[in-house]
Amino acid sequence: MTNRPDHAPAFEQRTPPGEDRERAVCVRCGFIDYRNPRIVVGAVADWQGRILLCRRAIEPRIGFWTLPAGYLELGESAEEGALREAREEAGADLEIDRVLAVYSVPRIGQVQIIFRARLNAASLAPGAESLEAALFEWADIPWSDIAFPTVNWALQHHRQSMAKADFAPFSNPVEGL
Amino acid sequence: MTNRPDHAPAFEQRTPPGEDRERAVCVRCGFIDYRNPRIVVGAVADWQGRILLCRRAIEPRIGFWTLPAGYLELGESAEEGALREAREEAGADLEIDRVLAVYSVPRIGQVQIIFRARLNAASLAPGAESLEAALFEWADIPWSDIAFPTVNWALQHHRQSMAKADFAPFSNPVEGL
Repeated sequence: MTNRPDHAPAFEQRTPPGEDRERAVCVRCGFIDYRNPRIVVGAVADWQGRILLCRRAIEPRIGFWTLPAGYLELGESAEEGALREAREEAGADLEIDRVLAVYSVPRIGQVQIIFRARLNAASLAPGAESLEAALFEWADIPWSDIAFPTVNWALQHHRQSMAKADFAPFSNPVEGL
Repeated sequence: MTNRPDHAPAFEQRTPPGEDRERAVCVRCGFIDYRNPRIVVGAVADWQGRILLCRRAIEPRIGFWTLPAGYLELGESAEEGALREAREEAGADLEIDRVLAVYSVPRIGQVQIIFRARLNAASLAPGAESLEAALFEWADIPWSDIAFPTVNWALQHHRQSMAKADFAPFSNPVEGL
């Protein structure tokens, strides 16, 4: 046995003992790949009324604008993950206000927890996954170049929430995905 | 090659190309186990002021009381997952009101999205993972036999929210985990 994989994984859909649904089980090594939805954490962050957006340097949707957001990693809270993503993608220092929205995107196995946040300073520095990071007045948001539907939802919901301290988190708009 | 695993998985911590952190990589088959936090969805559901709790029939914390809650599965929204868990564990038919709380438990890689909900009927039927399911007046909640700290948090936060329609979701109490 070398230290290098000698063949690719070989998953089959099987129902493990005591379970009620099929899981991907590797027929080579017995590994059960419990795939559950992943958590995306992000923020709509403002600086004196302007909103932070990042232009994607990676696929999918390279060149399009998005909120600082990404997969939550093991060992962090949802809030910590959102702060990390803003640092990594925009060089931005945020302060979290509250949960703005919880969106479910079952088709791609995601739940997105989006916070309402403020920038502690206007200084930005795009990270490796961003072509640029910038602050936009509402009227200047590049609506035709937004990367994902959930970014549109979050921007609209942030706008609706601006005068409110207390409100239930938004969820998917009723028109669906 | 038989159809049966001939050895156990053999994971090592390695940083895959283009990544910024170590992942569990199987040295037998090359599989990269992207382990991210999992989403637990659940509900504090009431019926005429009484709260639904289930007594666990499975480890961990067998015999202790918990909210209907469990891992979100692929293909469902957070709301759908919470409704399914209540059906499976308590035979309960819920209607979701709003997000009550978003708790992070980084130590065990969980984010818990707990909804405030109402029962559509008082009829209950404990499922395979529950010894019993019951409705409790606040004064009768078995506080010394609650399964997990987050259940305590959610019950207290539900109590605090009862008179409110609009409020920010609760998060972890400041005293920590």
